[in-house]
Amino acid sequence: MALPDEVLYGIHTKRALGNFKIDSEAISPLVIRNLVLIKRAAAQTNCEAQTLPAERALAIEQACDAILLHHYDDQFVVPAIQGGAGTSTNMNVNEVIANVANQYLALHERMHPNDDVNQAQSTNDTFPTACKMAALQLLPALKQQLKHLSDSWLRKAFEYDDALKLGRTQLQDAMPTTFGQSFRVYASLFKRDLVRINRASQNLTTVNMGGTAIGTGVNASQYYQQHIVTAINRVAHLNLTQATNLIDATQNCDSFAEFSGALKVLAVDLNKMANDLRLLSSGPRAGLSELKLPARQAGSSIMPGKVNPVLPEFINQVAFEVIGHDTTITLAAEAGQLELNAFEPVMIRDLLSSMTLLTGAIQRFIQNCLTDLTVDRETGAQAVEASPVIATVLSPLIGYQQTTALVHEATDTGQTIRELLLQKHLFRPAQIEQLLAPASLLGRPSSHKNQVVNH
Amino acid sequence: MALPDEVLYGIHTKRALGNFKIDSEAISPLVIRNLVLIKRAAAQTNCEAQTLPAERALAIEQACDAILLHHYDDQFVVPAIQGGAGTSTNMNVNEVIANVANQYLALHERMHPNDDVNQAQSTNDTFPTACKMAALQLLPALKQQLKHLSDSWLRKAFEYDDALKLGRTQLQDAMPTTFGQSFRVYASLFKRDLVRINRASQNLTTVNMGGTAIGTGVNASQYYQQHIVTAINRVAHLNLTQATNLIDATQNCDSFAEFSGALKVLAVDLNKMANDLRLLSSGPRAGLSELKLPARQAGSSIMPGKVNPVLPEFINQVAFEVIGHDTTITLAAEAGQLELNAFEPVMIRDLLSSMTLLTGAIQRFIQNCLTDLTVDRETGAQAVEASPVIATVLSPLIGYQQTTALVHEATDTGQTIRELLLQKHLFRPAQIEQLLAPASLLGRPSSHKNQVVNH
Amino acid sequence: MALPDEVLYGIHTKRALGNFKIDSEAISPLVIRNLVLIKRAAAQTNCEAQTLPAERALAIEQACDAILLHHYDDQFVVPAIQGGAGTSTNMNVNEVIANVANQYLALHERMHPNDDVNQAQSTNDTFPTACKMAALQLLPALKQQLKHLSDSWLRKAFEYDDALKLGRTQLQDAMPTTFGQSFRVYASLFKRDLVRINRASQNLTTVNMGGTAIGTGVNASQYYQQHIVTAINRVAHLNLTQATNLIDATQNCDSFAEFSGALKVLAVDLNKMANDLRLLSSGPRAGLSELKLPARQAGSSIMPGKVNPVLPEFINQVAFEVIGHDTTITLAAEAGQLELNAFEPVMIRDLLSSMTLLTGAIQRFIQNCLTDLTVDRETGAQAVEASPVIATVLSPLIGYQQTTALVHEATDTGQTIRELLLQKHLFRPAQIEQLLAPASLLGRPSSHKNQVVNH
Amino acid sequence: MALPDEVLYGIHTKRALGNFKIDSEAISPLVIRNLVLIKRAAAQTNCEAQTLPAERALAIEQACDAILLHHYDDQFVVPAIQGGAGTSTNMNVNEVIANVANQYLALHERMHPNDDVNQAQSTNDTFPTACKMAALQLLPALKQQLKHLSDSWLRKAFEYDDALKLGRTQLQDAMPTTFGQSFRVYASLFKRDLVRINRASQNLTTVNMGGTAIGTGVNASQYYQQHIVTAINRVAHLNLTQATNLIDATQNCDSFAEFSGALKVLAVDLNKMANDLRLLSSGPRAGLSELKLPARQAGSSIMPGKVNPVLPEFINQVAFEVIGHDTTITLAAEAGQLELNAFEPVMIRDLLSSMTLLTGAIQRFIQNCLTDLTVDRETGAQAVEASPVIATVLSPLIGYQQTTALVHEATDTGQTIRELLLQKHLFRPAQIEQLLAPASLLGRPSSHKNQVVNH
Repeated sequence: MALPDEVLYGIHTKRALGNFKIDSEAISPLVIRNLVLIKRAAAQTNCEAQTLPAERALAIEQACDAILLHHYDDQFVVPAIQGGAGTSTNMNVNEVIANVANQYLALHERMHPNDDVNQAQSTNDTFPTACKMAALQLLPALKQQLKHLSDSWLRKAFEYDDALKLGRTQLQDAMPTTFGQSFRVYASLFKRDLVRINRASQNLTTVNMGGTAIGTGVNASQYYQQHIVTAINRVAHLNLTQATNLIDATQNCDSFAEFSGALKVLAVDLNKMANDLRLLSSGPRAGLSELKLPARQAGSSIMPGKVNPVLPEFINQVAFEVIGHDTTITLAAEAGQLELNAFEPVMIRDLLSSMTLLTGAIQRFIQNCLTDLTVDRETGAQAVEASPVIATVLSPLIGYQQTTALVHEATDTGQTIRELLLQKHLFRPAQIEQLLAPASLLGRPSSHKNQVVNH
Repeated sequence: MALPDEVLYGIHTKRALGNFKIDSEAISPLVIRNLVLIKRAAAQTNCEAQTLPAERALAIEQACDAILLHHYDDQFVVPAIQGGAGTSTNMNVNEVIANVANQYLALHERMHPNDDVNQAQSTNDTFPTACKMAALQLLPALKQQLKHLSDSWLRKAFEYDDALKLGRTQLQDAMPTTFGQSFRVYASLFKRDLVRINRASQNLTTVNMGGTAIGTGVNASQYYQQHIVTAINRVAHLNLTQATNLIDATQNCDSFAEFSGALKVLAVDLNKMANDLRLLSSGPRAGLSELKLPARQAGSSIMPGKVNPVLPEFINQVAFEVIGHDTTITLAAEAGQLELNAFEPVMIRDLLSSMTLLTGAIQRFIQNCLTDLTVDRETGAQAVEASPVIATVLSPLIGYQQTTALVHEATDTGQTIRELLLQKHLFRPAQIEQLLAPASLLGRPSSHKNQVVNH
Repeated sequence: MALPDEVLYGIHTKRALGNFKIDSEAISPLVIRNLVLIKRAAAQTNCEAQTLPAERALAIEQACDAILLHHYDDQFVVPAIQGGAGTSTNMNVNEVIANVANQYLALHERMHPNDDVNQAQSTNDTFPTACKMAALQLLPALKQQLKHLSDSWLRKAFEYDDALKLGRTQLQDAMPTTFGQSFRVYASLFKRDLVRINRASQNLTTVNMGGTAIGTGVNASQYYQQHIVTAINRVAHLNLTQATNLIDATQNCDSFAEFSGALKVLAVDLNKMANDLRLLSSGPRAGLSELKLPARQAGSSIMPGKVNPVLPEFINQVAFEVIGHDTTITLAAEAGQLELNAFEPVMIRDLLSSMTLLTGAIQRFIQNCLTDLTVDRETGAQAVEASPVIATVLSPLIGYQQTTALVHEATDTGQTIRELLLQKHLFRPAQIEQLLAPASLLGRPSSHKNQVVNH
Repeated sequence: MALPDEVLYGIHTKRALGNFKIDSEAISPLVIRNLVLIKRAAAQTNCEAQTLPAERALAIEQACDAILLHHYDDQFVVPAIQGGAGTSTNMNVNEVIANVANQYLALHERMHPNDDVNQAQSTNDTFPTACKMAALQLLPALKQQLKHLSDSWLRKAFEYDDALKLGRTQLQDAMPTTFGQSFRVYASLFKRDLVRINRASQNLTTVNMGGTAIGTGVNASQYYQQHIVTAINRVAHLNLTQATNLIDATQNCDSFAEFSGALKVLAVDLNKMANDLRLLSSGPRAGLSELKLPARQAGSSIMPGKVNPVLPEFINQVAFEVIGHDTTITLAAEAGQLELNAFEPVMIRDLLSSMTLLTGAIQRFIQNCLTDLTVDRETGAQAVEASPVIATVLSPLIGYQQTTALVHEATDTGQTIRELLLQKHLFRPAQIEQLLAPASLLGRPSSHKNQVVNH
């Protein structure tokens, strides 16, 4: 099989292109980058272990540095979805490094992609390690956006702590709350997601480097086995730890499934938030109209002046995609057999895609929607005053039955609870005032309801 | 292994209990019933094929009849989720039939569960066939409810064909429609589901009876192979056909996955409907309040007079369960290997559960919610009049840009489009009347807009 | 908001970039192409309806033609996942067409993206229609590959119709079949998928063009409504039909969910096949080694000479991805509300991705794996001879119990059934020969077993 | 609506039966039990808070005790899947307690289900709390089984630490390991699941008791709010904590989604194990036959002597069901709106079902399969000796290229690597002995390979 003159990859890569190249995306450059970092660390470590001559190690390191400077980005061509558990990509990297390294070596000493560059390594330890590194490198940005999301909601909450909002349970009028309290819920929810995602990422830091083919470490020196993870941490600025049981870490992908599961919960929570925002901002005339999302673009090609909640809709779709990716990752993770799971390529494709989508969409949402979101205080307050449900506060005083009758009367006549109470002389006007005051409706201790109870 | 005196099942069943009995449900009686029907048909056919003596065949038939009369229901004890591809249940049936049949036979001629009752059969053809029969038997009730659902919406549509409803796209005010038109959408949607589900059930009628162990028909006589399906159809009143390729039909479960997929689409459509109903009936004061669902039960233990959309919520949850079952069925279907899929028990459990839940929930929904659902015509009409979006009909006359300005003015000032138009003298009052008349807003040809266009 | 000089898109597109551009892929060029075809057909039809002046229609058509010749591909920049139900992409197309068309028009007659290019249209009818067209255009290639797959298996079956293969049910030795029969199963399975997918695509041909904003057809002339679908069919060479209920067709996405569901069943079936192939070709020494897949690439960077089933693994991963996409599409489809489903962008992204991946992977699989797959006839035949399970054919003669004992003896002693039978003188040697002949084991009528039964 | 004389439930329950009763299961008795415990604790606390008279509180407590003694189990009749967010079940409990309590009260003082029994409570805090309690109560048994599973594998590992096993990556022969090492992998894997599930259960201990309708605590006294969780912990022997943000805890179901996600990862891992076991025990003649699972039941109704891996198949199906339940829970969790998620009933049904199935299936698996599982040491050792892949250890000595040639020669000629090496005189016999010794093949440092490397 002939190779074009201009390429620096070799026969393994060429064959992979023939096998897997369809109209599909390339593997994430981040995975490539991490494989190069691993190769660099391995060359150093093998050199220290005296299983790789110093000049070869140096040439490999120089080649890696050149690649890390993006001089050869176009040489990494194997698609993201590929058979072979990542071997094609590992060999693509080995081949390009070897060919680049050759310019740093005397002509008669050709670098061998397997014997030299891949020394003491296997696809089965380098590929999943590079994938985990990629996920860990995308993590800080996601965490930052999650923190930003939580903080932004909290800031927004301070602004609207006194803005009344009628609660709805099952979409039916329920007891009131405030927009501040509702926004604090999102702040609290995404803080929990931040903690959850962080915790679920812990197992990603455990890598099987040194395990080689199946985790037994065959063909790696003891020195290498003991030092390779430290060497990788040094070049990659990470805090990876070596798995206690390298065989386990080579064949099981539960850490990917676990992490994706945490992203899925975030997607669930983002959907909840986006759905609420779309609902509360519905209108302008025939919806709830309690929230006003900033108008970011014309909403319709046919209906002039229409504005749509495009950022929440963006969030929803990203969430759907993330949940779909979790299905894929679950299927791939449970399909592992014996000493290896051959389906890591599709897992890592979807995992990195989920992270990128979530990070980007949250960032766009905060910037283009949340920051300038406003509350229509009046609409909220009117809803509270108008809804019969606020009679609930009377229930401890006059009982569930009688309160029900009052609510039905309000619903049937269209009168407010306040109006009815004033008519009925069940309570004194001042008591009514106190009972239906925000503090009372919001269940706040300052409402001194206890006195009222003694009526 | 000792068996209790009072049981009629045998050692295979007893062992299955030891292996699989946890706090879990028993297999569907419908599957048992169909296995008994198959055994009865097989005894007849084997007798005709002269491979089973007439008195044995007769005894089996008599035993089957006694079982079909529910005299031995408590003898079928193997759980729904079981290892072994259904063998435990098949043997449970074989054993009980043999033991019951023995009372019809002379004492020295003991009936053998395998040699006699299971003659020319294998779990691998009887079990999936019994499962398909069960699904087909549950189908008419589901189809009837779907037809009922579609018809009920159509009836409701006639009632509200002239009741204006503001459309919402992306939950934002859009051009108007009528409740009649909206209800016709559901009628049309569920008619499509009816067709889809019916079509997706076709492959369930293809069975692998006669294929025995792996589809080659080993140990079944030619006569039996050619007549068993007809015999089953006769006793079960079904229209099963024998698969052309029995080996294919023995090892592939695509027909279950296909049918579950159609149920899943129905679940998707039911969710859409239930979500719409919950949204349109939200309120009473701080929601859309355009639909009124009949009050079926008190909605809250704490908030007196609250009424919730409990039937749509019931529909939603059944839909979620059906979609979850589809995941399970997909996983089980793709896990088949070589000549058999061993995971049919969980597939059929979930498939039958999906059918039962859908049928029951739709029936409850029609009876307890849809039949007495009413439209608040006034709220709908007011929303149409009040919403600036109806200016869209002016766009062909004055352009997108100018219409946008008009909409913004309406939104900002709170005036209606009608009011603004009357102020602005862009059109004559009669023209305005015509432009904003329901027929025009609803895009009906009778609106004679063409004349207007020439203005 | 300022636009760069060199771009032909306008403010709507620019805003969409600000809202949705993250590190994510662009929308499929096929969707863009179909939107352009729709715009071209709409301009013609509006011209015929006398609602668009001829010179404007002509300019639009010329602009569309130039775009279809790929002169402006870089102008369609909105990401695949976008909020707003496709409005950004529809406006992107409207804007680019308008700007390109302006060079064909006198300077004072600026083309308006909404009033002219989008005349009588809405995102809500053009976008889903363009998406359905895209799916229908990708369909022939998928169907062709499916047919090719089925045919290739059939061809392979003819080659190995007499090659014995031990069946396995639940991975345990079962009665024999032939490789020819097994390959016919795949041929039959994928023919069924072909039919299923074709049938599931029918509802995609029903489009809501003419429905405009919510399906009522507001702002489209009667002439346009009646002729637009024909006009599109003419330019796109498709056979679309207009939905009877345009409002239904505008708000429900069941046709996408249905079609994706059929792709999911194909994925399930492909997984089954790929799993079988990986299993049967396992080895070379410590696996089943009955099939030999062509070696397409070195299988390991560390284990020399290793060859892996990379094409089946590729198939598996594509199947996982397709099943994940089905989850996403299901979630998006059920999230539609009232008059629109705003989540079509992510649906169509995943649907087209599924189709492209399946088509490409099947093509690669046939070419790089199936065509040169061979059977090790000897291994298969030896397995049949060696396995005690073939004693099953004796069961109708000597009963289940006695046969069980024979099987246990064979298993315990390691002798073959043939050897045991010859020792035991239960049957004459010629009978044994006949009983254990392939025809008998394969359950073929030519085996004259009936005579034997009379022994 | 008339109630039968013999029932102790009331009108709310009766209505719920009419609305939701289809052929479906009842709600878990554990949820009922916990609601009763909550009611008991609430009565005490309300009494202490002086909002409920002592004799009423006492009557409620006595009624609860009688119910906890199972005297009224048949009165809790509302199905598991129900609309209304659990209100029907909460009212069912309130009604039965009230009616039972009446016998402890003077006749003129009727107990009111809402005013007395449900005092200071709402379905929206009691129902999810009871559900979380139920999950926490099922947890110890699941954890115990997981620990047992891990320990059992470890014990098995000690037994087979020296039993050679050929590794397989991508089902192709790979470098060797031992069965002991493989079993340690399962031990390590399920220990990780134990930790993961424990961690994921933490958020379940956070409850929203005291929050009443929407989390604001309206209608609950301050005293009650501060003491109710402690009171529940006292009667239920749990360690629940009250959520800091009760509004958040009332409307978000991420803790259910999170916990189900952890169960899903366990399902993934169980599938991996079950698949491995089914593969390694395949045979008896035409499979891998390296493991022998205990025969628990006859495997086939037609093939005598066949034994199937029924316990691993049971595990697989339970795992599929759990993954399907996770889909349902995800859908339900993301469908929450504004102040409540109305879909908790289906969530808790599926969550408890997952836990029960997993606990039971693992227990059955350990008892009926794992404990008596044995390894065929000889088959394993032969596979290692026979497979060309062990030439990998030569690669550091003679290079990847030359080793590849050697492997090809072994594959083509059918000779072992040992035989070829002895023929070729590349190494001295003693060196060969050392190179191919288990310690070397297993990558153990004791293999002194370093000296060999200097050859």
